[in-house]
Amino acid sequence: MKVWEVVKKPGFDALVLAQKPEPKPKAGEVLVKMHAAALNYRDLLVVKDASNDSDMPESIIPLSDGAGEVVAIGSNVKDVEVGDRITSCFMPEWIEGPLTAKKQMSALGYLNDGVLAEYSVFPEKGVIRCPGHLSYEEAAALPCAALTAWNALTRRKLLPGSTVLIQGTGGVSLFALQFAKLFGARVIGLSGSAEKIIRLKELGACLTINYRTTVDWARPIMEFTGGIGVDHIIEVGGSATLSNSLSCIRYGGTISIIGQVTGATVQIDLGSILAKDVTLQGIYVGSRKMFEEMNNAITLHKLKPVVDRSFPFEQARAAMEYLESAKHFGKVCITI
Amino acid sequence: MKVWEVVKKPGFDALVLAQKPEPKPKAGEVLVKMHAAALNYRDLLVVKDASNDSDMPESIIPLSDGAGEVVAIGSNVKDVEVGDRITSCFMPEWIEGPLTAKKQMSALGYLNDGVLAEYSVFPEKGVIRCPGHLSYEEAAALPCAALTAWNALTRRKLLPGSTVLIQGTGGVSLFALQFAKLFGARVIGLSGSAEKIIRLKELGACLTINYRTTVDWARPIMEFTGGIGVDHIIEVGGSATLSNSLSCIRYGGTISIIGQVTGATVQIDLGSILAKDVTLQGIYVGSRKMFEEMNNAITLHKLKPVVDRSFPFEQARAAMEYLESAKHFGKVCITI
Amino acid sequence: MKVWEVVKKPGFDALVLAQKPEPKPKAGEVLVKMHAAALNYRDLLVVKDASNDSDMPESIIPLSDGAGEVVAIGSNVKDVEVGDRITSCFMPEWIEGPLTAKKQMSALGYLNDGVLAEYSVFPEKGVIRCPGHLSYEEAAALPCAALTAWNALTRRKLLPGSTVLIQGTGGVSLFALQFAKLFGARVIGLSGSAEKIIRLKELGACLTINYRTTVDWARPIMEFTGGIGVDHIIEVGGSATLSNSLSCIRYGGTISIIGQVTGATVQIDLGSILAKDVTLQGIYVGSRKMFEEMNNAITLHKLKPVVDRSFPFEQARAAMEYLESAKHFGKVCITI
Amino acid sequence: MKVWEVVKKPGFDALVLAQKPEPKPKAGEVLVKMHAAALNYRDLLVVKDASNDSDMPESIIPLSDGAGEVVAIGSNVKDVEVGDRITSCFMPEWIEGPLTAKKQMSALGYLNDGVLAEYSVFPEKGVIRCPGHLSYEEAAALPCAALTAWNALTRRKLLPGSTVLIQGTGGVSLFALQFAKLFGARVIGLSGSAEKIIRLKELGACLTINYRTTVDWARPIMEFTGGIGVDHIIEVGGSATLSNSLSCIRYGGTISIIGQVTGATVQIDLGSILAKDVTLQGIYVGSRKMFEEMNNAITLHKLKPVVDRSFPFEQARAAMEYLESAKHFGKVCITI
Repeated sequence: MKVWEVVKKPGFDALVLAQKPEPKPKAGEVLVKMHAAALNYRDLLVVKDASNDSDMPESIIPLSDGAGEVVAIGSNVKDVEVGDRITSCFMPEWIEGPLTAKKQMSALGYLNDGVLAEYSVFPEKGVIRCPGHLSYEEAAALPCAALTAWNALTRRKLLPGSTVLIQGTGGVSLFALQFAKLFGARVIGLSGSAEKIIRLKELGACLTINYRTTVDWARPIMEFTGGIGVDHIIEVGGSATLSNSLSCIRYGGTISIIGQVTGATVQIDLGSILAKDVTLQGIYVGSRKMFEEMNNAITLHKLKPVVDRSFPFEQARAAMEYLESAKHFGKVCITI
Repeated sequence: MKVWEVVKKPGFDALVLAQKPEPKPKAGEVLVKMHAAALNYRDLLVVKDASNDSDMPESIIPLSDGAGEVVAIGSNVKDVEVGDRITSCFMPEWIEGPLTAKKQMSALGYLNDGVLAEYSVFPEKGVIRCPGHLSYEEAAALPCAALTAWNALTRRKLLPGSTVLIQGTGGVSLFALQFAKLFGARVIGLSGSAEKIIRLKELGACLTINYRTTVDWARPIMEFTGGIGVDHIIEVGGSATLSNSLSCIRYGGTISIIGQVTGATVQIDLGSILAKDVTLQGIYVGSRKMFEEMNNAITLHKLKPVVDRSFPFEQARAAMEYLESAKHFGKVCITI
Repeated sequence: MKVWEVVKKPGFDALVLAQKPEPKPKAGEVLVKMHAAALNYRDLLVVKDASNDSDMPESIIPLSDGAGEVVAIGSNVKDVEVGDRITSCFMPEWIEGPLTAKKQMSALGYLNDGVLAEYSVFPEKGVIRCPGHLSYEEAAALPCAALTAWNALTRRKLLPGSTVLIQGTGGVSLFALQFAKLFGARVIGLSGSAEKIIRLKELGACLTINYRTTVDWARPIMEFTGGIGVDHIIEVGGSATLSNSLSCIRYGGTISIIGQVTGATVQIDLGSILAKDVTLQGIYVGSRKMFEEMNNAITLHKLKPVVDRSFPFEQARAAMEYLESAKHFGKVCITI
Repeated sequence: MKVWEVVKKPGFDALVLAQKPEPKPKAGEVLVKMHAAALNYRDLLVVKDASNDSDMPESIIPLSDGAGEVVAIGSNVKDVEVGDRITSCFMPEWIEGPLTAKKQMSALGYLNDGVLAEYSVFPEKGVIRCPGHLSYEEAAALPCAALTAWNALTRRKLLPGSTVLIQGTGGVSLFALQFAKLFGARVIGLSGSAEKIIRLKELGACLTINYRTTVDWARPIMEFTGGIGVDHIIEVGGSATLSNSLSCIRYGGTISIIGQVTGATVQIDLGSILAKDVTLQGIYVGSRKMFEEMNNAITLHKLKPVVDRSFPFEQARAAMEYLESAKHFGKVCITI
């Protein structure tokens, strides 16, 4: 079977197409014919840092998020059947309960092989049935981006009538927009592109701000919220955004620390965290149990993930480059 | 000014129309020209038990829920202005935090005068601005029924995709239906009337059951939920319903104990509570802070309370009798 | 090896001593030489109802709670080693997260073989290392009684300075007393025996009441708490106690529904639940994760379970009869 | 009466002794003969920044934390009596519920007059009865430092057997040590002084580290906790400590952001927050309701605040300078 591999080379050259024998499911495992995969910003880091990353094995199959059809099952598999349309779980060992280092080590596509292959083998608990109304590309969008957004919004109580701020138009941000609206919240969206702002409005953002033209975007947000501020901020920016976020978060509000698109090391003013009783919560994807709850909501509301574009399997590198260009709105996928 | 009073007589005769001097607001108080009031089942008990109730003063103005316009304010009033359209708070001293006996004693319409009068005086914190899109009748529906439903659904986390069961078509139940849908939950409705079932469907119930024809209604609910059961039950029935509720609640689910329409003393099987890890939570209306959060949601979603019918001020007794007949669907109001 | 079995006979005759081949651990399993077991009230029900219980297999090894030494491990066992001193888990499949029907079905000593045998086989995750300072009898006391008490007290926040009420002197109640004191709470204890009351005081109860002589025990509790009531009640009584419990629980307090020693079907007044904003939470033992947290606390504080008496293996029936006599104070054990 | 005032001068010269007329209690107010006050780091900032702080009035009476005896009450005062020994509340308007900007504005000793005076007037709800076993100096230690520590430790669940890290030996840190031990937690203490480390051990710290000699103090903490890390960190350091704190916090752990002794602006690595699922919670003192709960715990356990030293009223400046020298262990007080 054909697979993409990341080997220890510099930059995108680390990503190469290869041939491997088709895997066989052992006891408790399932074999899946992959139909689609989805890219995350993290995958870019894996590919581009490959030559310097001593933790990484000599080569791995990249990408954590995939969807496909079960074509064979090992012995002792109880809850999955041949023919099931399934999605992979980002960390197959995070079934439920809180995150641990051990669960985290099971993440796909970095220390362990991922899903960018014609066939993949997963432990039974490492796959989850797709909502029936989703294509494979849409289903592949869920394991990391959607679950991160769901985990962020569901950890503390979110009430109808609340205000949620999203930053940019990547996968996590758009899922957060869609989920926040399911909760009856209103959503404020930031983007640097006039075109994307139109699409944020179409998705239901009640206020949109262009952060290029309105650098001090905390100010209009404070005005819009009557001087109170935002209840929950899905903080994916990092160094360029956190200071503004602290200015427009409400007393007692929540900032979910998710990404670091603009840099992982940030300067923050502890004074504003303590004076406003703010909670910063680190969010690292989520458990299988959260995934099941999220799928309930997606299924009930026939929610459709926003897929920007899907590249053919052979063009995986082009898909990566497209993600890096930051032109996308929603998820970038690969059809296998 | 004209007021209705409850005096110590048997049955509906306890409710009499009287004349009182117009009250004056003192420091920290506001005077409100009442425009509408709404009835709760509790008001029936106050009127009908008047002759036996030793706690009750010789006479009181009944009804806790009203809406009107502020026509004068006392000194030191800071957050309310003449001309404001306001709703009364059920317990003017429950501002925020948990319920206490002292806060509970401040409830209107039982130990203290209520709102069935042309003018009422409230402490400043005992009134709250109405959402702008509501009529006075609709606004009067909020203080007890809507807030009880909101408190019940917001105390523990409620996720989109959850299932909520409501019982009957009184005020609390219909508000719970409407609020649960704002949370992205699906709602199952019970009623004993084919006609009301049609209306439950119009309001968005995804499954409706006639409890007269399907006495064992837990069974179809377990089937509908794939054997899992309901996440949250708004238990207003009491002795006739709790046993069925325990049969169709899910593991780890929540039953909000709210009313006792069919009898306050119930037989329950503790075994089913403990084996299924169920939480029963007593709900007694709610705080002013919850009211503010609820109004945020009502305002954002332009949610309209379901008012069955409003009677003129002079026909308050007829309104009571109509409530007792249990023919209503939603709130029974009085236009003052 | 020698085992005790429950077979379908009436009463204590259901419990018979038998001979079985020594089991072998398969992949992921561990073989344990059992050194002690502990009795729970539930075990009495299993034995005495055996002849009427259609769910139960033809025969099973009874008792859920045991401790021993690992003498062999199957392949793929990672976290347990030969020589480890371990305790069994009540539900080997409840690792973490909320309780489900499926996890519950894995409980030992009823539908599945239990631990009253010279050797037992467990899945790797179904055993947990004993705190080092405990004897095997003390360790055997933990899986059901201690974990139930721990689960009850830790589900909602318990603050130093709170008041906890325990009922009687069975295993759950005494563990609840000991754990509540670790939290810095004060404990009120009920008992029907003057002698046991002395021992409750020795364990640190700050107030003790003889429920035989003070039938209306809610009254002195309300006085002792300055009219406020108790924060948390470990309700093990059932029909004879719940009504008093509702009278002396504080506004917003918690009643953990655990046992039904005095009858599972109770009459309750829903009015007192709702008016006082009370939460009744069903508690069914607990997860492996809770067990780990509990063992942390037990280890740090060198907490010693209260073992009333341990019977030799051959006298298992006498141990059961002793438990039934309700003369015990703390756990009744069997040394294997 | 004699008062200390902060007027707009540079440095400690801003603090001057003055004479003012004795205040009178109005409706709802109480007059208190002050017996002691306690210093917080915040008070240093108020005094030293006085000449640059445009928010501050021309002069104010400094210090938020005081204790004394009620000597007169205004009309409508219901819950306080002449002769009551009371403590001031840091924010008299934060009764309960979450913090708001409005409640925060009511803090004493900065925008509003504080307690460094022979007599002070407070709103009735702005004073709280002292635990009986405390001296006035000890009682004065509670409003800011103790309540901050209590708020931090009680916001999320803290279990017996948990590990708490405190930094330094200021008031908040030592109260956190004492309270964490009431919860049955074990406490790790950091200090830069060998002498203070001895005293930390006397107070029950199970591990102490000298951060001057062990700059990389996260490492021994990770070893001590078996590679797991600390459950809760009371972060009072700021820029010099947060990075180490993130290295030794456990997965899912809590860091309470409280002070900024070493600088308010810190560089943090968002990656470690998200990867370890850490929660950073801003803590700003606490509500009156928390104060009541804290006093329950203090009273039950006869807990004694650690008072380093108390200066006579006339030597308030010397007390300030002593606080600034950072030689203290526990609270620095002033006897009035």
